[in-house]
Amino acid sequence: MNALAAPRVLPIDVDLLVRPEWIIPIEPAGVTLSGHALAVDNGCIVALLPNDEAVQRFRPRQTLNLPGQVLLPGLVNLHTHAAMSLLRGYADDLPLMRWLSERIWPAESRHAGPDFVHAGSLLACAEMLRGGITTFNDMYFFPEATAAAAGRLGMRAVLGIIAIEFPTRYAADADDYLAKGLAIRDALSGNPLLSFCLAPHAPYTVSDKTFGKIATLAAQLELPVHTHVHETLHEIEESLAQFGVRPIERLRRLGLLGPQLIAVHAVHLDAAEIDLLAHEGCHLAHCPTSNMKLGSGIPPMATVQSRGMNFGLGTDGAASNNRLDLFQEMRHAALLAKAASQNAEALDVHAVLAAATLGGASALGLEARIGSLLPGKAADFCAVRLDEWMLQPVFDPASHLVYVSGREQVTHTWVAGNLVMSGGIPAKIGSSELLDLAGLWHTRLTS
Amino acid sequence: MNALAAPRVLPIDVDLLVRPEWIIPIEPAGVTLSGHALAVDNGCIVALLPNDEAVQRFRPRQTLNLPGQVLLPGLVNLHTHAAMSLLRGYADDLPLMRWLSERIWPAESRHAGPDFVHAGSLLACAEMLRGGITTFNDMYFFPEATAAAAGRLGMRAVLGIIAIEFPTRYAADADDYLAKGLAIRDALSGNPLLSFCLAPHAPYTVSDKTFGKIATLAAQLELPVHTHVHETLHEIEESLAQFGVRPIERLRRLGLLGPQLIAVHAVHLDAAEIDLLAHEGCHLAHCPTSNMKLGSGIPPMATVQSRGMNFGLGTDGAASNNRLDLFQEMRHAALLAKAASQNAEALDVHAVLAAATLGGASALGLEARIGSLLPGKAADFCAVRLDEWMLQPVFDPASHLVYVSGREQVTHTWVAGNLVMSGGIPAKIGSSELLDLAGLWHTRLTS
Repeated sequence: MNALAAPRVLPIDVDLLVRPEWIIPIEPAGVTLSGHALAVDNGCIVALLPNDEAVQRFRPRQTLNLPGQVLLPGLVNLHTHAAMSLLRGYADDLPLMRWLSERIWPAESRHAGPDFVHAGSLLACAEMLRGGITTFNDMYFFPEATAAAAGRLGMRAVLGIIAIEFPTRYAADADDYLAKGLAIRDALSGNPLLSFCLAPHAPYTVSDKTFGKIATLAAQLELPVHTHVHETLHEIEESLAQFGVRPIERLRRLGLLGPQLIAVHAVHLDAAEIDLLAHEGCHLAHCPTSNMKLGSGIPPMATVQSRGMNFGLGTDGAASNNRLDLFQEMRHAALLAKAASQNAEALDVHAVLAAATLGGASALGLEARIGSLLPGKAADFCAVRLDEWMLQPVFDPASHLVYVSGREQVTHTWVAGNLVMSGGIPAKIGSSELLDLAGLWHTRLTS
Repeated sequence: MNALAAPRVLPIDVDLLVRPEWIIPIEPAGVTLSGHALAVDNGCIVALLPNDEAVQRFRPRQTLNLPGQVLLPGLVNLHTHAAMSLLRGYADDLPLMRWLSERIWPAESRHAGPDFVHAGSLLACAEMLRGGITTFNDMYFFPEATAAAAGRLGMRAVLGIIAIEFPTRYAADADDYLAKGLAIRDALSGNPLLSFCLAPHAPYTVSDKTFGKIATLAAQLELPVHTHVHETLHEIEESLAQFGVRPIERLRRLGLLGPQLIAVHAVHLDAAEIDLLAHEGCHLAHCPTSNMKLGSGIPPMATVQSRGMNFGLGTDGAASNNRLDLFQEMRHAALLAKAASQNAEALDVHAVLAAATLGGASALGLEARIGSLLPGKAADFCAVRLDEWMLQPVFDPASHLVYVSGREQVTHTWVAGNLVMSGGIPAKIGSSELLDLAGLWHTRLTS
């Protein structure tokens, strides 16, 4: 009788209806839905609604039932150097400056040409898609090679327009880096999965003059600025000796602070600096594994959160992590904040799930397009199975995503409505090609 | 010609010859071997030797070639509450005392009978074997039910003779706990895979009188003593208020310090306490994930290591972790020590591999039987595949075990020469039984 009484509306054709056990939409915050479906059409999310309404309202060309699985927005890797996957485990257990100057920079100066960047980015994009990451914010040389790799695999990428004062195979000086990056941006401007970010490497490798140009470009072109800052105490001491101020104060004087700034790492922040960054609307790219592994220290994330500063999560490059795995970063963010603050309530599971999705999207200025499962946003999402015996019992799927399951439980990853990973391997590349690429570069790097 | 010139010795029959890509024997320390084989007979390691010698010296009933894989000793979980796997994710993001008194203890008082302990221990043992753990040191009620679960799955276990002052379904008072535990020890004394450990719960739940009895029993029966201590600042403050001294000083006065003591957690240690524990030959069970998750703090492991104190790694129970995964604990131990000491060289990969194997074995007094791949020891070991595309490239297998691979890459686990896990599931239990057990208890715990 109710069926007759209900308004009679013809069902709408859609590309896909996904019916998992649970959905964590991120917006609204802290919610886990059961018995709901996600409708996708033309690359976008059309609706998130109860199953019984979904079957009335939609006539899907494909329906995917995912019992025992949880659906969440695609993860956003807010800071990485994708191509460095080829240097995974190349040097360990060394502090940042020795690791960079004795091991990483020499290897890069010998090897990091466009072919290295393309191969490393393919491996990195494959690894990230495998683990539910749909968007990454990259900083490296030859970004056009990274764009090509992401494009082939159907992944969303934010490419860094890198600037550094010393010459590499990619560019001769800071102006050359900026010119090359801006030219790549012009050449690739039509690609809906690509956007760009100004990426001055760090206060210790970029001059005031170059930072000034970047502030101007950021305002003119409305681009985010993404820079390593306050990563180590050593960096701060050097800045005090050379410039008489800490790097964040130097960036403030140069006009860099504002909602366009993504402060990467920001391990060492005093209370005034947190207040300043929060007041200016800056974002923080928290990379807990890299900060721990390089012995950089422990960022005060519980305070950052309580002051209302937006933050996302980053893997950093595989050379300092050594995984491109945001499930790991979510777990490490939650655990490290609790350990450092001696407060088990710091960064709860919903806070880190939000950081790994909407936090990263907001930092990149992409919150209208990605980062949650709101209708109208791009259909970037992933499915994670929680029904394996080793994960039982499940009292709270959100808790399990952070503390129990891992990227190995991601079964499907979609970008803009396209199924770009299932069955443990990206749709557009095979394991043998990935193994061959890694093997080739392993040989070159060790010969 | 060399073959003719070599001494002609008839090959010896052995049960098994394993030929992996790499072997990390733990003894000698810091070594990764290539082109070597492990010969196993009658449950014991017979030889670790170059492949060409192995084929001359041995005629194996079975040969297992494992290209792309690394062999290492079975991991030793130095502190867990196996049965609490049924409370995995039952309560998160709460500090220790609230987590215990509001959530865990009420659930245990309602549910933790022998059937709960047996089911939870089956799930825990299965999870541990899946991840290369061959021995666990347990502290829980109804240890005979845990022994039965470990026995069924062929796992090596050290059972805690638990003591606590308050009554539970298991026992009425401290004397009753000790009497029950000792009776179980007598009943199970013939099992070569079982040993025992006195397990007073913690300084805040055990009286001086009971600690005194335990010191006497430890000396009489030559048993290790395994207790939570200095886990939180709150515990230390309470002890100062009640006893006028910190818990470690209280244990010293009660005669508990010595090579038999396994100090679990020991998060908060001043320099004098580290020196005292090291001088007395005490061992530390480091549980980094649990310490972080409960907001207990960060133990000074870099200092513990530099003072030469032995330590192993523990998962704690699944309720405060939420995985029983020593690959995760190795990674967290390495990362957290570096973060806290701001020294990337602290706890390098070989140090954490040793802690997860020989360190735990030594703490339990089992270093003559397990913990490394020395000939004569029991054949407890596991194989980990490093040839998946997502883990490439591999420059150093030891680094990959700590920073890249996970328990999901463990392909085989052997205990006393028996293959107790392969293909992702223990030999003696199926996934449907494990899912049924977890489902049943999930229903009971949420009804």
